[in-house]
Amino acid sequence: MKVYVWKHSGNSYKLRVLLALIGVEYEEVMVNFRMHEHKSADYRKINPRGQVPAIVDGEMVLWDSAACLVYIARKFGGKQWLPSAPAPMAEVMNWVSLAGNEMLYGLQYARRGLTRGICSAGTVEQMQVNGRIALDVVEARLATQDWLALGHPTIADIACFPYVETAPEGGMPLAPYPRITAWLARCKALPQWPARWQT
Amino acid sequence: MKVYVWKHSGNSYKLRVLLALIGVEYEEVMVNFRMHEHKSADYRKINPRGQVPAIVDGEMVLWDSAACLVYIARKFGGKQWLPSAPAPMAEVMNWVSLAGNEMLYGLQYARRGLTRGICSAGTVEQMQVNGRIALDVVEARLATQDWLALGHPTIADIACFPYVETAPEGGMPLAPYPRITAWLARCKALPQWPARWQT
Repeated sequence: MKVYVWKHSGNSYKLRVLLALIGVEYEEVMVNFRMHEHKSADYRKINPRGQVPAIVDGEMVLWDSAACLVYIARKFGGKQWLPSAPAPMAEVMNWVSLAGNEMLYGLQYARRGLTRGICSAGTVEQMQVNGRIALDVVEARLATQDWLALGHPTIADIACFPYVETAPEGGMPLAPYPRITAWLARCKALPQWPARWQT
Repeated sequence: MKVYVWKHSGNSYKLRVLLALIGVEYEEVMVNFRMHEHKSADYRKINPRGQVPAIVDGEMVLWDSAACLVYIARKFGGKQWLPSAPAPMAEVMNWVSLAGNEMLYGLQYARRGLTRGICSAGTVEQMQVNGRIALDVVEARLATQDWLALGHPTIADIACFPYVETAPEGGMPLAPYPRITAWLARCKALPQWPARWQT
């Protein structure tokens, strides 16, 4: 299985985490954004959106981070990371979707605006409004649960972790969110939790 | 099962379609956006994001459209709409995620900008760039397949339908996308396909 990533990509880091926690062997392919490899014709045959991550496993091609998480969890992770029964599966998907919506188009894009000056999805202030909705929802959830779904670690936590952790770089400090701060530490304390790529 | 919707919401329409195609009985609760009911304290107890749709089924609460589609498909739809095996499930999720990403933050928000003057996620032109990525990916896919995933109708098609159909209202005419135009017609020809709410 080839896993296409970029070392600065939070969406790529989600896959790195899940693969490490489960202990899956795979071939990592670094797609160099600085060299614009993600927009090359060859890479677009794998991922027509021109983004990372992507997975190629035999004839199967996946080009969305949530779909990749679902695939890894279901193929290698037994029932722990994403159960197949309707209610628990949907409970996990609530958070996986939040990660691709208010977290990406809020926490992450505010950060990209502040650190790289790219504001292609609204002003930094507009993205911070979105991002704080996500942080508020997570903080409220953690008032009664240690993990986002099902009472144990799932891909809900892994999908949300990367851009929540870097929220302060988007001008949203986590000091007002003590439960989130504790949850980030719990995640990182899981056995085999991997660091981000060295940059 | 209570399903919270708003008649102008494309994300709500996704649930209306899937529930009708499968033939599920449910209680529809209209959340009046014009009266700001989606931002009320009572409704936020159900959906802390302050959006539609949401589902309450016994003790289970879902507040994301993709999670709601997953729940309905898995609980009532057998294997057709979302299989549980890793590869086909992930193939469907590629498109469900695209619907919540480039389609919502592209096709739909460009439309909202043009029709209601709300540009909270970038300029209309920026959103159209995003939207055209989605349309190009769908058009390319339909060159070899009649349906977005697995060779038959799934929640991939249902998740993508609403905002693709209304793309022209966002300044992205569908005339350059003949395969999309044919696919929209195929979707609407499915038995029990429901119209949008009368407005």
